[in-house]
Amino acid sequence: MKTPMETSGGKPLLMDLEDNVFLEGDKLVIIDRRKLPRSIVKITCEDYGEVARAIEDMVVQGAGDIAVTAGFGLYLAARESERSGKKDTKDRLKRAASRLRATRPTGFHLAALLNRLLSRLDEAGKDSEASAVILDFLKMTLQKQREVSDATGRHAETLLTGGDTVLTHCFAGAGLLYMLGYARDHGKTIRVICTETRPYLQGARLTAWSVSQLGIPTTLVTDNMAAHCMSKGMVSKVFTAADRIAMDGVVANKVGTLQLAICANFYKIPFYILAYGGPDRRTPKGEGIPIEERDEREVLEFLGTPISGPDVRGYYPAFDLTPPELVTAVITARGVERSRE
Amino acid sequence: MKTPMETSGGKPLLMDLEDNVFLEGDKLVIIDRRKLPRSIVKITCEDYGEVARAIEDMVVQGAGDIAVTAGFGLYLAARESERSGKKDTKDRLKRAASRLRATRPTGFHLAALLNRLLSRLDEAGKDSEASAVILDFLKMTLQKQREVSDATGRHAETLLTGGDTVLTHCFAGAGLLYMLGYARDHGKTIRVICTETRPYLQGARLTAWSVSQLGIPTTLVTDNMAAHCMSKGMVSKVFTAADRIAMDGVVANKVGTLQLAICANFYKIPFYILAYGGPDRRTPKGEGIPIEERDEREVLEFLGTPISGPDVRGYYPAFDLTPPELVTAVITARGVERSRE
Repeated sequence: MKTPMETSGGKPLLMDLEDNVFLEGDKLVIIDRRKLPRSIVKITCEDYGEVARAIEDMVVQGAGDIAVTAGFGLYLAARESERSGKKDTKDRLKRAASRLRATRPTGFHLAALLNRLLSRLDEAGKDSEASAVILDFLKMTLQKQREVSDATGRHAETLLTGGDTVLTHCFAGAGLLYMLGYARDHGKTIRVICTETRPYLQGARLTAWSVSQLGIPTTLVTDNMAAHCMSKGMVSKVFTAADRIAMDGVVANKVGTLQLAICANFYKIPFYILAYGGPDRRTPKGEGIPIEERDEREVLEFLGTPISGPDVRGYYPAFDLTPPELVTAVITARGVERSRE
Repeated sequence: MKTPMETSGGKPLLMDLEDNVFLEGDKLVIIDRRKLPRSIVKITCEDYGEVARAIEDMVVQGAGDIAVTAGFGLYLAARESERSGKKDTKDRLKRAASRLRATRPTGFHLAALLNRLLSRLDEAGKDSEASAVILDFLKMTLQKQREVSDATGRHAETLLTGGDTVLTHCFAGAGLLYMLGYARDHGKTIRVICTETRPYLQGARLTAWSVSQLGIPTTLVTDNMAAHCMSKGMVSKVFTAADRIAMDGVVANKVGTLQLAICANFYKIPFYILAYGGPDRRTPKGEGIPIEERDEREVLEFLGTPISGPDVRGYYPAFDLTPPELVTAVITARGVERSRE
């Protein structure tokens, strides 16, 4: 079966991580998502510290994409160690993994991938070159992520009916684009409303742009317009991603997801989570998910310009927690799992 | 009894309309609210057409303030007619009133004030100078608005308890500042969270700045963080203004008010409307309130910079409608009118 990319004219840049995070020799190139879609700016990271800072600075975003990018950071650390000829590669990689793990606390993919990579290196034995082990693992992970996004999108697409308008928040990842691409290829007429997603505007810059590249009619609204659109009957279904789902069903995702879920519930509009690999078995309860608080300046300034008074403080929780009773169904690579009707 | 201004060190610029919209001879000066608080920029309007454009461009905002500003536009039209010495002042003023009335459709104060002004001119007879009649009326209106804001704030203050954190959206007018100033003067410790209010950022630029000028701890969040703050127990009460309240209790206010009301209801947080003069008797039902839709560019651009892709459309409903069952009480100059517990 063809994928939406093969049948469409243009493939969105953000549909495949390998198009925007890739190695050039012993350097990692990341297309700076903060500059998209106006400019395609390459950030070149020469060591794992630069990769960690790029993740902290949101040059790349999305739980799965952050994890693989951090994996490439570990690859740079391995190459550096190998070039230096020293024998303490394992210790160096542990230090690098700690630094990379500390960049973003809310998503679980980051720590999970780095931990798996370290185990893999332990298993590989002394004769294996660490960088080769890491690279093999990352290639396999990228291939698996692509398959998971494709399968998640394929299952989610079965929830769509021609004439639907989908509202989405932040950038829900390639699975959203697969879902919409398959719907288009199946002849379903779908419209998409994207919330801009302050303060980083991922909805405006990444999602609306990517969806419009699929040839799907795309409308941008500010975050405070969602309930108005719902009240006017303009929204058929809401889809967001999840940075982490706890085993009790609580969904951590980009701040703003919770109020969309509350409003969708109020208007009896189905609220779906694109969950890719599914819940995190190591997180029993949502209350155990650490909510990253970012620098207040990211709220107090816009594009470097202060937007409020000198005595005003900012508060920037980057994620919020949506209780399972507000979620209609969770869609993973394995299928659609309904949690409320 | 002293007002908060008299007891405080600094009086917020936006507490009194006369400080930011005033005549200089036959010209009207408006402090450009789009530039606040970073720069105090005077926009000088030489005729009513320029006043109309300034209102459309949101140099001034807030239903009551827009109405008085439009009244000054009519004053400029009268002065122009008197200087020209022609006899058709009445026709000219009717044309000017039509132009000014068409600037912003959602608030009711604008049309109401212009209609009252035209009636007053009819009653005044031939010997009266139109501009003098208009100016008298506007001075009286300004005085009355100040009294209404003061009384509304005084009544609203009785709803506050020391330790409360008030969440507010957009700029709820001088009544909000009176309320907070009185609470401070009564020794109540109050904190305020302001939503930034995209796309024009009135919450960040006008409200957060003005509240902090009263010496009250003020925190700015983006519009998508309100439910998260509520879920964490950080919000005791929500207060917004209303651009118009219909006789069935439906509240038209800055877009985003509806979703705050839905979320406050979900978390059982009281949701109050600062309603100043109260409902509009000429609007029986909320569904009869026209919702202004503004230029999509105001959503697609930020500070003149495009934030999305070239094929993305924007949608900008400037107001939304909140049903009365989500409103705990409406506060006017006459007192607190509870609508739900």
